[in-house]
Amino acid sequence: MTLRFSLLTFISILFGVSAYSQDEDVHMIRKIHDQALAHGKVYPWLSGLCLNHGGRIAGSPAYMGAANYTKDLLATIPGVKSYHQACEASYWMRGDKEVVELMTNDGKKIKLNALSLGNSIATPSDGLMAEVIEVQSLDEVESLGREKIQGKIVFYNRPMDPTKIRTFSAYGGAVDQRVYGASKAAEYGAVAALVRSMTTNLDDFPHTGVLVYKDTLSKIPGIAISTNDAEMLSARLKEGNVKVYAKTNCRKIGLRPAPTVIGEIKGTEFPEEIIVVGGHLDSWDVGQGAHDDGAGCAQAMEVLRIFQAMDYKPKRTIRAVLFSNEENGLAGGRTYAEVSNSKKEFHLAALESDSGGFSPRGFSFEADTSVFKQYYRHVSQWLPLLESYGLIFEMGGSGADISPLKSQKGLLIGLRPDSQRYFDYHHTSTDTIDKVNKRELELGAAAMASLIYLIDKYGLK
Amino acid sequence: MTLRFSLLTFISILFGVSAYSQDEDVHMIRKIHDQALAHGKVYPWLSGLCLNHGGRIAGSPAYMGAANYTKDLLATIPGVKSYHQACEASYWMRGDKEVVELMTNDGKKIKLNALSLGNSIATPSDGLMAEVIEVQSLDEVESLGREKIQGKIVFYNRPMDPTKIRTFSAYGGAVDQRVYGASKAAEYGAVAALVRSMTTNLDDFPHTGVLVYKDTLSKIPGIAISTNDAEMLSARLKEGNVKVYAKTNCRKIGLRPAPTVIGEIKGTEFPEEIIVVGGHLDSWDVGQGAHDDGAGCAQAMEVLRIFQAMDYKPKRTIRAVLFSNEENGLAGGRTYAEVSNSKKEFHLAALESDSGGFSPRGFSFEADTSVFKQYYRHVSQWLPLLESYGLIFEMGGSGADISPLKSQKGLLIGLRPDSQRYFDYHHTSTDTIDKVNKRELELGAAAMASLIYLIDKYGLK
Repeated sequence: MTLRFSLLTFISILFGVSAYSQDEDVHMIRKIHDQALAHGKVYPWLSGLCLNHGGRIAGSPAYMGAANYTKDLLATIPGVKSYHQACEASYWMRGDKEVVELMTNDGKKIKLNALSLGNSIATPSDGLMAEVIEVQSLDEVESLGREKIQGKIVFYNRPMDPTKIRTFSAYGGAVDQRVYGASKAAEYGAVAALVRSMTTNLDDFPHTGVLVYKDTLSKIPGIAISTNDAEMLSARLKEGNVKVYAKTNCRKIGLRPAPTVIGEIKGTEFPEEIIVVGGHLDSWDVGQGAHDDGAGCAQAMEVLRIFQAMDYKPKRTIRAVLFSNEENGLAGGRTYAEVSNSKKEFHLAALESDSGGFSPRGFSFEADTSVFKQYYRHVSQWLPLLESYGLIFEMGGSGADISPLKSQKGLLIGLRPDSQRYFDYHHTSTDTIDKVNKRELELGAAAMASLIYLIDKYGLK
Repeated sequence: MTLRFSLLTFISILFGVSAYSQDEDVHMIRKIHDQALAHGKVYPWLSGLCLNHGGRIAGSPAYMGAANYTKDLLATIPGVKSYHQACEASYWMRGDKEVVELMTNDGKKIKLNALSLGNSIATPSDGLMAEVIEVQSLDEVESLGREKIQGKIVFYNRPMDPTKIRTFSAYGGAVDQRVYGASKAAEYGAVAALVRSMTTNLDDFPHTGVLVYKDTLSKIPGIAISTNDAEMLSARLKEGNVKVYAKTNCRKIGLRPAPTVIGEIKGTEFPEEIIVVGGHLDSWDVGQGAHDDGAGCAQAMEVLRIFQAMDYKPKRTIRAVLFSNEENGLAGGRTYAEVSNSKKEFHLAALESDSGGFSPRGFSFEADTSVFKQYYRHVSQWLPLLESYGLIFEMGGSGADISPLKSQKGLLIGLRPDSQRYFDYHHTSTDTIDKVNKRELELGAAAMASLIYLIDKYGLK
């Protein structure tokens, strides 16, 4: 042995990885990308899901169609065992009539582009009409008090902050209005809540999304209106009183089967260490659930296909998990973790893609505090292998569906794609396959497969 | 003074920048982004350019409309002097008839989606018909020789390599077929050249682009066909001989005025040091030139507007330059450099955005070798200020229009946006404003303004 180390050797020693492995890893990650970009199935698989099983809200017939379609696709990958994990979801169904109209002072009606929020109750069957009061926050409802709110329609109009570089931060800063606005308004006697849609765009598309009622409070309908209509309504309120008429007939149907779909490759060396790669199969009932989150499901399936196509036999058990009911209840993620805990399984890692099928820009990592630093130090070694693909590592949230696994003390990971276009399409009728760029989707799948490959090969210690 | 340095102080000393300035820079770059994202004009400006002055090939009436529109826009920014720099471009015009048909053995005609390449001659007025021979490269034409090529239509069908992560690399690896294919085929007696469109997509859109004839060789028509049609033609050639009929009536009109548009803010301290931020105003005649390169022009104008809106008075002279005739001659870039050299100007830096209005991912830098290292070391200090916006720095090409300035020994810079979608739209009828995401375009402008701000404030030494 000589003391003349190459830089690669030095790096390898620093990272505790042999020089041979580094070369092999560079080669394998290149092969993963070649597979995804030249022979990828992720785009046609997503197309089939979107075009034949769109609007697949958990519990719906469309959802069951999607669950069968994806289970069958997974079964086409040699070496993959695919199955349904039983799960029940509270099925909420939009009605066939949603009419929201602004009543002008001269007796005209202006139709507003509106969608009932998910889980909302309906209006009375002949609708409701009331004066509108605009607020910028839940706190403002409190400070206005019952005197101003009673009998009114509360209109939440605080926009997503366009100056946030990451649109998810802007969403996080505004979405309390959609989730809790109706209950807060009900607390002070309002008859309904209108919510400005969650997008920085000015357009005509209403964005639905989950609404959560406080059990202790009376329930009132919650309805999203498009941002253009929110601007118009706000402008008219500056001129004087405005009444709005709303009629909706959405309703809760009750518990329905909505299985989570699983495809599994058994590990050759450490089959008891499970690595999950997933997304959620359910979507809202409008649009096709292309970016949210058909993309993540198709990518998770593609990871298994890539491994098989490369003849890579994982040491650990790899599961593609297409979770049920992320959008309005998280029954899929909760059930999966409960079943796993009851079987005393250990998830070494779980990676979720639920931020759209856009160009991947990196991964964010989280874990129980007792293990996080160790894991993060370990995975950081691999960054040089992924940087040339434009990926970075950071600490941060992973995914809603995998978060119930945190107590197993594995590593939880979120794919972080470019977020600029996500809220153009999120929870709207325009979240359709034509908004997904094939290469961007493929690169996301390749990034996921690359990281899963490294975790599988080296473990996390 | 105490020895207890803060980390920021340490970094500041390391970088030769005062701690105060670092704080100020963080603040200024944040303000630049706030301006671009909350009060941006770049998207409406680009919309106006696309919708009213699309297909603005240099020398065309559409180009003159665009040159006046942008000069007038620049004039609306207080403190900006806007003017036209005279330039003449060789005006090539597509004819009103382009017919390319595959003749089947049973006498049917199948229309191919085709576009004459820019600068191509027309076919004879009643068209031409010949057998097709498929090749994968210019070299293959040489090795086949006159015996196989004479009298044929040469069909270049080497695809862009989808496994390249950066699509510009894939383009660079295939575009010789489009640029030089016709002359190479003519050298061996071919009557026309068909070229597979420059995109990794399989679709029905033919992509035009420049063709360059060798003066010493006879000229034959060069025509792009869509990738779907290229696949179909190739499949039919595997079954037997195929004839194609082509009739085109494009032609060169001759030299026409095609001014470069300039907006200038005079520097307060070092007015003799010029910093250019630019794009090219001309586009191909199909589509609206939205990503290529209306985006770059609108972003360059937006940089000046942002500075003015923030009341930032540059120390150095900042010029937004919207170059003429990048697509088929580079007359704008060449003329600009000639005029600048004749006036003995010095361009400290020039930044071009000509890779589409997509999410910015960084900048690439180049310069004369005598100064490059020094400049690159200098600018690398600023990377921590831009990293949180998802930007990286790298060595590499800048832009075609600014490249003639290299001899002035300033720093040349290219904006590097995400490249995945660029060749979906490049040189096709689909390069339209609806393909541009407002936030992505705005973030590109903000990234450009941030870097120009730092160069202006600190210089490059």
